[in-house]
Amino acid sequence: MAKPLKHVFVCVQNRPPGHPRPSCGQKNCADMADEFFWQMQQRQLFDKVQVTTTGCLGPCSEGPSVLVYPEGVMYGHVSKSDVAEIFDEHLENNRPVERLRMPKHFWG
Amino acid sequence: MAKPLKHVFVCVQNRPPGHPRPSCGQKNCADMADEFFWQMQQRQLFDKVQVTTTGCLGPCSEGPSVLVYPEGVMYGHVSKSDVAEIFDEHLENNRPVERLRMPKHFWG
Repeated sequence: MAKPLKHVFVCVQNRPPGHPRPSCGQKNCADMADEFFWQMQQRQLFDKVQVTTTGCLGPCSEGPSVLVYPEGVMYGHVSKSDVAEIFDEHLENNRPVERLRMPKHFWG
Repeated sequence: MAKPLKHVFVCVQNRPPGHPRPSCGQKNCADMADEFFWQMQQRQLFDKVQVTTTGCLGPCSEGPSVLVYPEGVMYGHVSKSDVAEIFDEHLENNRPVERLRMPKHFWG
């Protein structure tokens, strides 16, 4: 496999109901993560983009969290309906989606 | 939390015994992953290094796999005893550990 141009890390951390710390798993990250794999397949970007699920990325209150390297852009509150735009703008055209960027307080 | 200078992704993918594809979980990645968290705590590098566990990173035959961004250096066959050297050389002094780098065929 080739080293990807963009490597997308999608938090799929779950915590049980009632846990004092929120989790991306409680906020429908699974549907959103599936959409990343689906869009990658539809666009046939296997040589350019890699998508990897992760444990906790840290800023749980701002999740679902998605982190794109090598640039280290962190997105927050990402939903399934945001994923196509992340591909259109960032992953395929190198323009991060500013409206989804996590505030510097959380990832500065 | 600060954006880390080095973000270490440690594959902890498991597959059941007899599965045709090997997995980092079958090759003691859990002990190795724990050592990353332990070393980070011992060295108090919370502001500089972040360690995140992941699902499959791809080159399963070469695992346990560890990937360091932003530079995108992939290590293979990483064991618990290699972790201190990765901190000493790469994470604290920006010198990737060449002997552990995955061949370009797998991550080129």
